Amino acid sequence: MLHGYSLVHDDLPAMDDAAMRRGKPSCHIAFDQATAILAGDALQTLAFGVLADAQTHSDGNVQARLVARLAAASGLGGMAGGQMLDLQAETRQLTLEEITLMQSLKTGALIQCAAVCGGMVGGGDARLLAALDGFSRDLGLAFQIADDLLDYDGDAATLGKPTGQDADRGKGSFVSLMGLEPARAAAQQLVEAAVSALAPWPTAGYLSYLATFAIARNS
Amino acid sequence: MLHGYSLVHDDLPAMDDAAMRRGKPSCHIAFDQATAILAGDALQTLAFGVLADAQTHSDGNVQARLVARLAAASGLGGMAGGQMLDLQAETRQLTLEEITLMQSLKTGALIQCAAVCGGMVGGGDARLLAALDGFSRDLGLAFQIADDLLDYDGDAATLGKPTGQDADRGKGSFVSLMGLEPARAAAQQLVEAAVSALAPWPTAGYLSYLATFAIARNS
Repeated sequence: MLHGYSLVHDDLPAMDDAAMRRGKPSCHIAFDQATAILAGDALQTLAFGVLADAQTHSDGNVQARLVARLAAASGLGGMAGGQMLDLQAETRQLTLEEITLMQSLKTGALIQCAAVCGGMVGGGDARLLAALDGFSRDLGLAFQIADDLLDYDGDAATLGKPTGQDADRGKGSFVSLMGLEPARAAAQQLVEAAVSALAPWPTAGYLSYLATFAIARNS
Repeated sequence: MLHGYSLVHDDLPAMDDAAMRRGKPSCHIAFDQATAILAGDALQTLAFGVLADAQTHSDGNVQARLVARLAAASGLGGMAGGQMLDLQAETRQLTLEEITLMQSLKTGALIQCAAVCGGMVGGGDARLLAALDGFSRDLGLAFQIADDLLDYDGDAATLGKPTGQDADRGKGSFVSLMGLEPARAAAQQLVEAAVSALAPWPTAGYLSYLATFAIARNS
């Protein structure tokens, strides 16, 4: 829900002005801008409402920690702040360090939140939560580099959205700043680091698969 | 913060298209639309983040209940849903019953939430929470009728925003549907009901004052 809200708002004309999303008209095209603003607003609210619902978890203390973590990951110090940096990046080229920070806030924080909150709900100890945090930080960055690679040489029909948008807008990306092959290599390295962070937990194979998928995907 | 976010989003061109707020340029005028969308988004996030912060309250179970209540009051079944009804109301005249429902969602739910959450934080029993619920429902409706009265015959300079907006947009209001004097009388009656709901708690004098202020205010 949190991610969905961010996509609906990011697609608005005042933001990324994207008419298509997942191969369909984006929310403000299918309905109108007011509806898209409100739908995004209400989706964000619902995300917190579900976490705090008495049916969701038997321990309110866990719920409060989940809400706090989601709020930290999605607000000014996370996703929304990263999106603001992204908008400001349209007026000047960012350095590789700045893009890494922007992406870690804009998309990485929420991926980390999902992994760590899963660990909290499962009653994981501090060592597991730290491993999930590291795993998902590396996964998030790899995912974003893969996104830039797909924007550079992916297939628009498979992606369900146009490619070449970074270059068209003159926006710096991992590909333009690192070069194609170094970017591929960095993504590969990050995935290996992510997988090895979870190596002590053999049951975490599915999460390792997710990391591998993040760079192998074509959409 | 929740209320602030709703004002910033409501003022956007796709919503109420209001250039002024509290006597100053509204957020999207002072900055730009993208900033206003993100500022509203981040303010909503922060509201839930503060409620769930470990520093806010010693009992996570209370925090989870506060988050659940705020989410219920501000999402689809509350403020955001009411705003959607309000937007739809621009295409046809609402009945008095529909306006009452729309206002109870759009502004009333959040006022009730503030009162009841205050009671929860203070450790109030079920009887006090029920009284606060009734008190604030009446207060919220009186507040909104007073708002329509101010839009009808208030002073724009004191209000910090233009008057006569309901009539200009052909929107039904409590004043246009009930008539001026019946609307005044209804607001007065609601405030009396609100005050009497709290009569068993003599220390609630300040809340009673708030109810009286809701209809005595000139801005």
